[in-house]
Amino acid sequence: MSFALGELAVRFGCELRGDPELRVERVATLAGAGPGDLGFLANPLYRGQLAATRATVVVIDAANAALSPVAALISANPYATYARMASLLHPGPTFPAGVHSSAVIDPSASVPASASIGAAAVIGAGALVGERTRIGPGCLIGDGVSIGADCLLHSGVTVIGAAQLGERVRINPGVVIGSDGFGFAADAGGWTKVPQLGSVRIGADVEIGANTTIDRGAIGDTVIEAGAKLDNQIQVAHNVYIGAHTVIAACVGISGSTRIGARCMIGGAVGIVGHLDICDDVMVTGMSMVAHSISEPGVYSGGIPAEPAPLWRRLVGRFKRLDGLAERVRRLERGNNGDPNR
Amino acid sequence: MSFALGELAVRFGCELRGDPELRVERVATLAGAGPGDLGFLANPLYRGQLAATRATVVVIDAANAALSPVAALISANPYATYARMASLLHPGPTFPAGVHSSAVIDPSASVPASASIGAAAVIGAGALVGERTRIGPGCLIGDGVSIGADCLLHSGVTVIGAAQLGERVRINPGVVIGSDGFGFAADAGGWTKVPQLGSVRIGADVEIGANTTIDRGAIGDTVIEAGAKLDNQIQVAHNVYIGAHTVIAACVGISGSTRIGARCMIGGAVGIVGHLDICDDVMVTGMSMVAHSISEPGVYSGGIPAEPAPLWRRLVGRFKRLDGLAERVRRLERGNNGDPNR
Amino acid sequence: MSFALGELAVRFGCELRGDPELRVERVATLAGAGPGDLGFLANPLYRGQLAATRATVVVIDAANAALSPVAALISANPYATYARMASLLHPGPTFPAGVHSSAVIDPSASVPASASIGAAAVIGAGALVGERTRIGPGCLIGDGVSIGADCLLHSGVTVIGAAQLGERVRINPGVVIGSDGFGFAADAGGWTKVPQLGSVRIGADVEIGANTTIDRGAIGDTVIEAGAKLDNQIQVAHNVYIGAHTVIAACVGISGSTRIGARCMIGGAVGIVGHLDICDDVMVTGMSMVAHSISEPGVYSGGIPAEPAPLWRRLVGRFKRLDGLAERVRRLERGNNGDPNR
Repeated sequence: MSFALGELAVRFGCELRGDPELRVERVATLAGAGPGDLGFLANPLYRGQLAATRATVVVIDAANAALSPVAALISANPYATYARMASLLHPGPTFPAGVHSSAVIDPSASVPASASIGAAAVIGAGALVGERTRIGPGCLIGDGVSIGADCLLHSGVTVIGAAQLGERVRINPGVVIGSDGFGFAADAGGWTKVPQLGSVRIGADVEIGANTTIDRGAIGDTVIEAGAKLDNQIQVAHNVYIGAHTVIAACVGISGSTRIGARCMIGGAVGIVGHLDICDDVMVTGMSMVAHSISEPGVYSGGIPAEPAPLWRRLVGRFKRLDGLAERVRRLERGNNGDPNR
Repeated sequence: MSFALGELAVRFGCELRGDPELRVERVATLAGAGPGDLGFLANPLYRGQLAATRATVVVIDAANAALSPVAALISANPYATYARMASLLHPGPTFPAGVHSSAVIDPSASVPASASIGAAAVIGAGALVGERTRIGPGCLIGDGVSIGADCLLHSGVTVIGAAQLGERVRINPGVVIGSDGFGFAADAGGWTKVPQLGSVRIGADVEIGANTTIDRGAIGDTVIEAGAKLDNQIQVAHNVYIGAHTVIAACVGISGSTRIGARCMIGGAVGIVGHLDICDDVMVTGMSMVAHSISEPGVYSGGIPAEPAPLWRRLVGRFKRLDGLAERVRRLERGNNGDPNR
Repeated sequence: MSFALGELAVRFGCELRGDPELRVERVATLAGAGPGDLGFLANPLYRGQLAATRATVVVIDAANAALSPVAALISANPYATYARMASLLHPGPTFPAGVHSSAVIDPSASVPASASIGAAAVIGAGALVGERTRIGPGCLIGDGVSIGADCLLHSGVTVIGAAQLGERVRINPGVVIGSDGFGFAADAGGWTKVPQLGSVRIGADVEIGANTTIDRGAIGDTVIEAGAKLDNQIQVAHNVYIGAHTVIAACVGISGSTRIGARCMIGGAVGIVGHLDICDDVMVTGMSMVAHSISEPGVYSGGIPAEPAPLWRRLVGRFKRLDGLAERVRRLERGNNGDPNR
């Protein structure tokens, strides 16, 4: 399938500089592109690759368009425009409607004829699958789970705990939704399990990365609002709330009952303490520890970049002796350095 | 199923303030409760919700009982008492004894009639499953694995490496037990695999959270003692030892051959270096790096809370110039600031 | 199966001190060994166990050989020599060629007669499996995936996104390869998915630990070169490149498009920012945040060891007041401490 540049310009509302009859078939990086390829420039890191690109056309903003050696589709938001064009050029696999003969569907589950259920998938009692939803091979959908229309669950996804997923939710392999939260009460030298009785509710258009885990609530539900995007290997504890359109990078851990607002951006490997309230529009940079609630939108940080080991060891030594340094400054201020008895 | 408050008071040894004939059917949060609900107050963070609760009864300690606007079941340990009452009110699903027709059981495996084996589960040669144990859908139990009585393995659990699990072990989806430890010997510019020959031994009443991984020992076993509780996405390397009743929060990584004592509490996302010895009754707060053995019980910390980004950048800059600051203090102490040549 | 010490000495090029007719059957730790066991000393931490060992022979370097109370196989690299001997003594399980009756193989997939496909495994359309490769129970191999000869995929491995694996690749349970990368373009208050169109290429002799995730490229491929070793729960984002023989410990997160050179060693729980370039022969110690490219081989660090909580709290307080301390030093240098108006 190929598209003329003129057609793309009209369909996506771009200004076109170049021949509207030229056609593209696929996307490519600026450096790897050749004839028939559509490239894009969104990250200024890659501007240096523009001059030598052999793409047929580049999606680009107005400020950089003059630098393009080839045709340009000019967009105020070249990355989003690229994403939409890429979805048109590469529509992704389609899945045949129907249930694979090796899948195990409980008779009380509801699976519409338009759904596609892969090999060795298991769907439990009372589970509901939405229209046109794909449940990939080896997925394990527990009793009472409800999955909306037009969802895509890749291979090997587990959803239990009567979780409810909205429409167009996309889930990558290895994700676990609805597992027991971590609740134990200290009791006579050991631990008594606190029953985990809530569920998980996931809004429309949420995407979840590989091997991320989302526990069911203890009482009440763990909630992920519409449009939120979660990367791989994120841990969402019981009764966490994640607001709409919030984006969370890989390896983040969110402790129980913490509430994250809408449109937040949480960097990779951030850790967030439990029972906090983080307001809308907060950005946290990678590897930060969020230990207090945040009530002001803005950017928050807590990671210290690595240094060559000998320098780092010296700095850590200085850090651990900060008490002593502060004391020496205090003594200097009192004018008695050199004579601690003064 | 409902219970009278008088019956609960007797069964769980609580003092009851209120009408013993009132009945409860389920648990709820203080804020979400209505008639027929049993709430609890254990975390002082939620004391503010007490005055407006519409629960029928609140499990609470004596110090706060007077604040309850409704009936009170008074307990010295309200959280544990709540947990026990919640288990009574919500006994959890039961699983039918027997083997699902789609499960694959090796003829040499031992599966008692009282066990429940879910759809698409696979049980390997020589594996032993205990009485009344539930192996959920899609679980993969390898050759020679032994699982005790009354265990619950949720969907999609993998146990290999001839691991041995005690009684009443509960394992959440996506857990991997008995995978190869990470052992390679530098050899002629590359790496030679060190065979991982040990196993994993898990004591009674251990609970393991979703997507946690526990490697088999290199030689000798990785051991988790009875009553330990592990949250989600924890990494336990080969030959680690975790003592009885130790509790480990999500996203912790424990490097090889480290020994953690009994009754420890390890906070979320803590990293522990290999070959360490951590004594009993140690608490480590979240996101700490434990780089040395610990021989004294107590609380240890290593995380720095995030700050607004401009302040954090300034602090990191100060940290990286600590050498210079210390030098300036030294010069001031020598009395030669202002003249570095003196 | 047992081997004479003389035979081992010849086969592995060791000097033998002791009776060449003595035989060993298995490996053991120095502390746990008995007659018939082969032990080794590679880590000086365990030198104290040497004097009391009851092993039949110890693999050891020349410098320590005189300390052995039993026979010694002397090697310049005792750990690698031990690894090779252990592989000889414990050759590991073999898997019967053929396809388990419960496996689901797409008719268009290519599975040679020498391959071994476990129970409940699923192999998709057009997938290629190499000679003698083992695909364990419950593995999910997606459409168009290619797996080389002599690979070992343990139970419950998911490979999608048309990933290509070289020869002798070993993959532990729960690993996900070829999941969608995390690409979204900000768009009208929400996020538009950026199609993830690249794949994953994994070289020969790579080993991957349990529950590690490796995303497919956005455009172009995510690449792991030959001989690299990845531990458990590592996150490799889209378009990352990992050089040959690089070793990565557990819980590391590598952000998108970052390039790591050959023969690097990345410690546990390290986080690496995206779009960086890390040269060959870099070692990063555990829990460091790598926020800048590295162009010089060497050791880099960024973690601060935990301390007893009261001391740590004081140090963090000092850190957060570093601005003030520096200002006080500046004032002392100006000679106006005590009088801020001067």
